[in-house]
Amino acid sequence: MLKIALGQMEVIPNRPDLNTDKMLTMIHNARSQQADIIIFPEMAIPGYLLGDTWEQRSYLYDCEYFGQKIIAASQDICIVFGNVAIEWDKHGDDGRVRKHNACFVAQHGQLVATRIKTLQPNYREFDDTRHFFSLRKLALERKQDLETLLTPVNITIKDKVYTIGCIICEDGWNDDYSFDPIAALQANGPLDVIINISSSPFTLGKNNKRNRVFSRQARETGVPLIYLNTVGLQNNGKTVYTFDGFSTVYNRLGQIIAYCQPFAETLDYLDLPITTVDQELPAITVPDDFTIDSLYQAISYGTKKFLHSIGMTKVVIGLSGGIDSAVSAALYASILNPENILLVNMPSKFNSATTKNLAAQLAQNLGCLYTVMSIEQSVEYTAAQLGGTPVTNLANGRQCNLLVSSFVLENIQARDRSARLLAGIAAAFGGGFTCNANKSELTVGYSTLYGDQAGFLASLADLWKHQVYQLASYLNTHVYGREIIPQAIIDLVPSAELSFDQSVDQGKGDPIIYPYHDYLFRAFMEYWNRATPEDILSWYSQGSAVLEQKLGCQSGIVDQLFPGPREFIEDLERWWRLYTGMAVAKRIQAPPVLAVSRRVYGFDHRESQNTIYFTQKYLTLKRSLLSPT
Amino acid sequence: MLKIALGQMEVIPNRPDLNTDKMLTMIHNARSQQADIIIFPEMAIPGYLLGDTWEQRSYLYDCEYFGQKIIAASQDICIVFGNVAIEWDKHGDDGRVRKHNACFVAQHGQLVATRIKTLQPNYREFDDTRHFFSLRKLALERKQDLETLLTPVNITIKDKVYTIGCIICEDGWNDDYSFDPIAALQANGPLDVIINISSSPFTLGKNNKRNRVFSRQARETGVPLIYLNTVGLQNNGKTVYTFDGFSTVYNRLGQIIAYCQPFAETLDYLDLPITTVDQELPAITVPDDFTIDSLYQAISYGTKKFLHSIGMTKVVIGLSGGIDSAVSAALYASILNPENILLVNMPSKFNSATTKNLAAQLAQNLGCLYTVMSIEQSVEYTAAQLGGTPVTNLANGRQCNLLVSSFVLENIQARDRSARLLAGIAAAFGGGFTCNANKSELTVGYSTLYGDQAGFLASLADLWKHQVYQLASYLNTHVYGREIIPQAIIDLVPSAELSFDQSVDQGKGDPIIYPYHDYLFRAFMEYWNRATPEDILSWYSQGSAVLEQKLGCQSGIVDQLFPGPREFIEDLERWWRLYTGMAVAKRIQAPPVLAVSRRVYGFDHRESQNTIYFTQKYLTLKRSLLSPT
Repeated sequence: MLKIALGQMEVIPNRPDLNTDKMLTMIHNARSQQADIIIFPEMAIPGYLLGDTWEQRSYLYDCEYFGQKIIAASQDICIVFGNVAIEWDKHGDDGRVRKHNACFVAQHGQLVATRIKTLQPNYREFDDTRHFFSLRKLALERKQDLETLLTPVNITIKDKVYTIGCIICEDGWNDDYSFDPIAALQANGPLDVIINISSSPFTLGKNNKRNRVFSRQARETGVPLIYLNTVGLQNNGKTVYTFDGFSTVYNRLGQIIAYCQPFAETLDYLDLPITTVDQELPAITVPDDFTIDSLYQAISYGTKKFLHSIGMTKVVIGLSGGIDSAVSAALYASILNPENILLVNMPSKFNSATTKNLAAQLAQNLGCLYTVMSIEQSVEYTAAQLGGTPVTNLANGRQCNLLVSSFVLENIQARDRSARLLAGIAAAFGGGFTCNANKSELTVGYSTLYGDQAGFLASLADLWKHQVYQLASYLNTHVYGREIIPQAIIDLVPSAELSFDQSVDQGKGDPIIYPYHDYLFRAFMEYWNRATPEDILSWYSQGSAVLEQKLGCQSGIVDQLFPGPREFIEDLERWWRLYTGMAVAKRIQAPPVLAVSRRVYGFDHRESQNTIYFTQKYLTLKRSLLSPT
Repeated sequence: MLKIALGQMEVIPNRPDLNTDKMLTMIHNARSQQADIIIFPEMAIPGYLLGDTWEQRSYLYDCEYFGQKIIAASQDICIVFGNVAIEWDKHGDDGRVRKHNACFVAQHGQLVATRIKTLQPNYREFDDTRHFFSLRKLALERKQDLETLLTPVNITIKDKVYTIGCIICEDGWNDDYSFDPIAALQANGPLDVIINISSSPFTLGKNNKRNRVFSRQARETGVPLIYLNTVGLQNNGKTVYTFDGFSTVYNRLGQIIAYCQPFAETLDYLDLPITTVDQELPAITVPDDFTIDSLYQAISYGTKKFLHSIGMTKVVIGLSGGIDSAVSAALYASILNPENILLVNMPSKFNSATTKNLAAQLAQNLGCLYTVMSIEQSVEYTAAQLGGTPVTNLANGRQCNLLVSSFVLENIQARDRSARLLAGIAAAFGGGFTCNANKSELTVGYSTLYGDQAGFLASLADLWKHQVYQLASYLNTHVYGREIIPQAIIDLVPSAELSFDQSVDQGKGDPIIYPYHDYLFRAFMEYWNRATPEDILSWYSQGSAVLEQKLGCQSGIVDQLFPGPREFIEDLERWWRLYTGMAVAKRIQAPPVLAVSRRVYGFDHRESQNTIYFTQKYLTLKRSLLSPT
């Protein structure tokens, strides 16, 4: 038996000083509990998502300095922790000083071993190879077998030697790599225990997969495995990630015997059976991770931590009476005190009494600060000024006037609300204003730049519209326990109400048909192998049922929406053009998005602003579908 | 002698169809000129900076399909071209189909050889490892020596066999790597010629370095080297890169014997001496690359190509009478017809007659469309509406009013100009409006979000303020040949004119002292090892002259600005806090920036929104400097 302290700490990126203080406190507590080992997550001292701060030599010095403090504190306890390891006399491929993403093991006030990450992720939000020199690269440089470089760490505790396999995050997710660090370690062992220190961002459903993969590893090697993950919030600028911790211990049979509370900083203790004569701990079950509970928890935790990280205590929310702003308001009201939330309804002549009343009712339910400021006069003034001020051609002295079309007027309204009112109100109120956009809108740019796309954070922009509805019901049922968001808001047809053509009372609304387009857009965006019109049309040509099954949308909806291939193709091309065209331009200037899915706009989904393209096979298929039979 | 056609083509990213058409035309021309070989750049078919489009299998199929067309066209000519090479039955580390950044060699309508990139850049704007499987990784997977995998390509032309070393871009920039692909190829040769196909973005001064490095390679191996680079424009969303081509041929002595016109699509021919009995061509000199000419050329070319790529033919520019908008207007007027440019002066009561007259004068000089729209009334209306509309606390029914401070009013003005007027005018005019921000402002967020930071492209945002002034003079002297930008605009104190405290007539202006802060910010941002306050203060503590030399700013300015360490430190911390704090939040929502320097905001300079940090050594140094002696 080893008494193990699981230091599931909140890592504050860019604050090695604060992280070290916290680790020292946890170490102190663990020693007082006679723990044999305390484990901290990957990059516990510097943080993980730091952008190019890794290029500041002075920052690296500090990380090393604080790492020494942790090592010095390893009297009477073995400490396993993540930090950057620096080889000052060597350089990386970029010519800068060589850095490794490393696991440090310390005991008796001394460094016992350093082990560096073998597999470095370079997909989604990860940029490991940009900053760190992996063990794979080292093997190549030294012309050594990678296997021989992966050696376990031997630690003597109470006169017994334990052989520990130290791996870092991606080393455990090796299914797609041609090399398995765990197998190599075990071959150089045998191991008594595997420790995987991680800094693994939350993704809906990821823990379910992790439990399958890591259980199998423990079972196949017959070695208990400890997964220690960080909690907190880190970001890559445009994309904000929560870290849920959920540190988990698997026994040699692959059963889960302990886990730490997700989204909570904890210091848990575990008496881990190491030898086969030890009594095995009973298997326990972990909660399912692919649920609306997890989703709410991530969004709530992430929004709260983001506010804290930028020192924002007050928010302004534009309340239209529609579903997105309603969910946003109810979410923030579950995080901040009502008096720190200012809800603003900003009607024009196009807004119905229905939505104005619903906005007021929601505000009343939440008990926040509330005000109504009309945009009618200022929009009229702007339209008159734009259309009424002569423009002079200075080459010939001729004058003309600009024409303010109804489309131009729609966007003027959206910007008037956000850039004129909300931004001004937020500044006067001493806070920021939220962006309430959802992922469906963001996908096709169905929002106005500097208008409803603006804000300091887009908490809901990684949720498809149907998930926003799910969250609305969840807030009412599970968070508030009453109908805080009026059911009428949930039942209302989604509409921007920027013209009389978008009248909710007449059941008119958005051009996006969410029960179908949510799923089409998801296929463009979230599928590991991105679907393009070629894939979509190919599925459609195999029958609507095939397409619906591939997209995961409701059965029968395709034929219901599209009388034939011509209408189907017209719709498909319309949205593909927007998704890969104007919407990219808008996303470049979008606020940070809080991540929950396995593909998030911003740094996870990297994109270029290019001309629209349809593949050759698509064009061929289209011709054949549209040709008269 | 080999007759070589240098296909310095403009590659349109995401348009394999158009790129292939162009290549086929060039191949046709080269065959009619009896060229032995035609060379195209790296990723000539797909484009290079495509974001995650590489994850669309249908796109990859198309690239392969078009590659086959080029191979089929290699009758009577040898074709060397870049494309993605796909191993459909293997996967990369991300589990997706395996892709290589590759060089294809075709002859007699057949594929002769494929060579894949050995060294993949992962710094600055590059993300190669995210998408491509390098030869280094392949060597590790196969447990083979990397050296043995790097084999030359043998081509028979007119009954003689030529041994060609095909490398791709970064393979030639190997000084910081532990492996030299050229040496390995030569060891497996000997080589008759080295061909480096590239897709290398323009950076001011990069060609000077490239000529030094590549000349040395040719000289040291004694093998002529052909560098073939693409022209055009590609982007990573937030950062827009020009590609200058400047394809260059080095003889076995390391002398430059030919180069293609920069920033131009060209098909040049060269009779290249291959054996030592051939007559060497005379060495020529290439223009210096680190000049205001290069800078102007890149910005002008990039802006023009960007407009073209998004199909924008008209622009609106807010003209304040200050230097940035003046340079922006003069730049666009050198690209578009004057009648497609609408200049707008938007005064408030804080704007001086001086700047209003200068704006009008500049507009007159350019002969564009011009209008004046005041923000006075709408700003007053907004202030009155914000301050005069009661806010109700719905928890207790109490009412209060928001306070509109002078600071709040400053930002209201900036947003009124951009989000209300310019955005509306641009929509009505049928174009976009420009962002005229410079790099100094962007560094510390000295601009208003949704205000003067807004726009569809920030053409000048990679220029420090002193470079904006240089460009102003250059435009007058070299582009227009007359004082198109009034000298008074160049001489004016830079000011935002958002309050009477910023009156230009009283010589008051920006809080940024450009002759010093430009260089301080550059050290934070552009130095390969980023300077932090620790470095700056350490240099300062060694004497102002040391600091000035390290920063490259004018001598004597530090003591002139700061009476002592207290003032120096106060200034340093002020800007560091902004640079790593609020300015990051603003940059997340900034427009795309046109790149010219070796470090550009956006995708080149990756950053996270974190809390401010000062290192331990900085704090110690600060204490010692501020302690009474």
